[in-house]
Amino acid sequence: MILGAMMAVPGLVDFALGNNDWIAFAAASTSSITIGLLLFVATRRQSIDMTRHEIFLFVPTSWLISAALAALPLYFSNLGLSYTDAFFESTSGLTTTGSTILTGLDSKPPGILLWRSMTQWIGGLGIVVMGLILLPFLKSGGQQLFQLESSDKSGKPFAHASTFSKRIAYTYLALSVLCVIAYASLGMTTFEAINHAMTTVSTGGYSTSDASMGQFGSTAMLLTSSLFMFVGGLPFLFLIYLASGRFERDRQIRYYVAITIVATLCLFAISAIRYEDGGLHRFASTLFNVVSVITTTGYASEDYQLWGPSAVVIFFFLTFIGGCAGSTAGGFKQFRIVVVQQVVVSALTRTFRPHQMVTMRYGTRRLEPTVTESVMVFSLLYTATFILFAVIYGLYGLDFETAVSASATAIANVGPGLGPIIGPAGNFATLADPIKWMLCFEMIVGRLEMMTVFVLLMPGFWK
Amino acid sequence: MILGAMMAVPGLVDFALGNNDWIAFAAASTSSITIGLLLFVATRRQSIDMTRHEIFLFVPTSWLISAALAALPLYFSNLGLSYTDAFFESTSGLTTTGSTILTGLDSKPPGILLWRSMTQWIGGLGIVVMGLILLPFLKSGGQQLFQLESSDKSGKPFAHASTFSKRIAYTYLALSVLCVIAYASLGMTTFEAINHAMTTVSTGGYSTSDASMGQFGSTAMLLTSSLFMFVGGLPFLFLIYLASGRFERDRQIRYYVAITIVATLCLFAISAIRYEDGGLHRFASTLFNVVSVITTTGYASEDYQLWGPSAVVIFFFLTFIGGCAGSTAGGFKQFRIVVVQQVVVSALTRTFRPHQMVTMRYGTRRLEPTVTESVMVFSLLYTATFILFAVIYGLYGLDFETAVSASATAIANVGPGLGPIIGPAGNFATLADPIKWMLCFEMIVGRLEMMTVFVLLMPGFWK
Repeated sequence: MILGAMMAVPGLVDFALGNNDWIAFAAASTSSITIGLLLFVATRRQSIDMTRHEIFLFVPTSWLISAALAALPLYFSNLGLSYTDAFFESTSGLTTTGSTILTGLDSKPPGILLWRSMTQWIGGLGIVVMGLILLPFLKSGGQQLFQLESSDKSGKPFAHASTFSKRIAYTYLALSVLCVIAYASLGMTTFEAINHAMTTVSTGGYSTSDASMGQFGSTAMLLTSSLFMFVGGLPFLFLIYLASGRFERDRQIRYYVAITIVATLCLFAISAIRYEDGGLHRFASTLFNVVSVITTTGYASEDYQLWGPSAVVIFFFLTFIGGCAGSTAGGFKQFRIVVVQQVVVSALTRTFRPHQMVTMRYGTRRLEPTVTESVMVFSLLYTATFILFAVIYGLYGLDFETAVSASATAIANVGPGLGPIIGPAGNFATLADPIKWMLCFEMIVGRLEMMTVFVLLMPGFWK
Repeated sequence: MILGAMMAVPGLVDFALGNNDWIAFAAASTSSITIGLLLFVATRRQSIDMTRHEIFLFVPTSWLISAALAALPLYFSNLGLSYTDAFFESTSGLTTTGSTILTGLDSKPPGILLWRSMTQWIGGLGIVVMGLILLPFLKSGGQQLFQLESSDKSGKPFAHASTFSKRIAYTYLALSVLCVIAYASLGMTTFEAINHAMTTVSTGGYSTSDASMGQFGSTAMLLTSSLFMFVGGLPFLFLIYLASGRFERDRQIRYYVAITIVATLCLFAISAIRYEDGGLHRFASTLFNVVSVITTTGYASEDYQLWGPSAVVIFFFLTFIGGCAGSTAGGFKQFRIVVVQQVVVSALTRTFRPHQMVTMRYGTRRLEPTVTESVMVFSLLYTATFILFAVIYGLYGLDFETAVSASATAIANVGPGLGPIIGPAGNFATLADPIKWMLCFEMIVGRLEMMTVFVLLMPGFWK
């Protein structure tokens, strides 16, 4: 119902501008609200507490239904999209991936462009709320590390949901407004600024131009955008506390900063040599593209594949990393790098000192075996899913680079892949329909942190 | 000293055939034996029992010294190789990888060709003995699962070494002789049969021809070679028991067989469609190339990259898998697939049933947490090393496909990579020297099962 109500916004924009597509939004909005109402009536209960099993069913189902409904305005519009393409675009939006099947964005009606940006903005907020409240409760992929003390005790994840959700929403809104103001003051039109702000703080990456941020590539713009993407990749809990003047240490932030700096310096050296230009603009553009990939936003200010094979390989591996847990960013996530490092060091130490006890820590906290095991299993599922789909895309005839990078960019919710087809200068329109559906699956699995979806594949879950 | 003595064999062959290279072998042999004698005198002790720390130092050092000495005949020969190339070739030999920097093999002197094959044969035997006696003792990468009951109790890995080593050596020798006879009866010359038998049972992959097994590509030859490679990838303990009439179940064998069958059927379908030929020869050639990659041998009977992108992607991922633990094969190894599957299923089950106890098993045996953790850490180090070096090769200017497949083929000890440079139809000669040294490092790290080398990088080890 909320999604349906949201569709009214771009509908009104199109109506005000005399664009025919307002009818598509009206139809989509009506359908969504109707379906929402029916579901609401059918499932209404006194309390919204759910069992563990129900939550596991609820999470992927709600994302799937949202994507299916969010696709309707695109499907009903005058763009002539197939439902596959519309669903791909809305899934890529809601999961804040940012891969697109549209070309000629610059000439698309404003309502459609606004709706694409809105799906990312809604999806970004959704994932932060989910990451803070649901994932720790589900003990998914080591996220129990970020269990709020209150929800820990009550065992009811929705009990404190409204308080925290409100604070998150305010922070998210404040960030977005700041970003709109910054973008507008640096030369974007209000419409462009609103669209890009929504896809920046959500680390989504949809743009109103085929040239992505290359369209607005001033040094100041690139640096500002890098800053907001980077903030979008920080844990929102950290931001909430920071806003109230409390500096809450979180180990993963140190890794996030360090990896961003190292990658930027390496790639700055490469691109500076490539273009014989070590100036500030070159640095800004390098930083922008690195932050864009690490935060899983997926904007591009230029085709970084032209920097040479070394840059391509680095960008490929940056694709997997992702931002912090509790942020809008996807990917493997920084806190898992911290945990994995602890596990490896401890295991290696025990190899040559079999009787030594090694305590694994996350910052000052001890890491429980259930957390480390969860993280290790997440790592494996992440790798295995990436591999499985890369093979399948290869079987469908995609070349090596396209197949491998498509799978990586979808599971990590980044956006662009590598190569001439789906690279930062290309798009996903020409891929076969089955590949698009599988990419949607990967985007949702990646967004929901693997295990939340994979438990549904276990026969034991249904018993 | 043994290595030095072994060099006399190709030296005598060259001498008998009036080839000048016998001088190279004589010089290399003398140097090796001298160095060996000096080391022997310097380190002679009453008993060869070592502390855990000493074994950790001994294992990689002995492989490094062996590779350095085995390179001498190639370096001293008339081939005009740099020491880098000679070391690359001997490391690739001893680790049974099979990547080569030589071209024009067909016209190379027989002594050199024989020496290359011998390094693989010696390396293959070395790794089986090490895998059966040392690795379980070192609790490296989950290999403690295969600890022999006897060595378990005594805590002295060398105590029962001689009995088992002898039985392994006999089995290995018998297999090799059978393979020579089979190859010779199918049309190879005696010299070719001896060379290829040595590089088949060791799952090494060196050939006497640039066309590799494509030179002898009859259906019967391909099927026979597939059989011997496959046996080389089976656990030698299983073979020893089988020879004495006892069928000892080992869970990993089932996976090994299943993965080989599935991969062969998939690729047979692909190549049959590609060449519009579903005949026996096509099947034999498909099976041959699949077994060659899974067992980490690395022969090629044709350029399977011509089968299309889907085949390329499948072969790329087959590169990582490898044969069984306790065999001559490298790679991730089948038993780890068994363990990883158990860990994932157990973790997923506990996600939705937090209080259920799930027992992880390897066949009928319970998996201890130390084993599962070891395997998970191995998986991570394997992936991380692969990624790290792929990035570095990219930084050195290799294209995406070459960089990624070079790193994979080295760490898994397979041999050929992908792409026009290092693919099944190419070779490693043109790569830059630093890349060759790093590939050598990867080959040794892969062969010694990661952790055995990585512990040396831990500051704590040296305290």
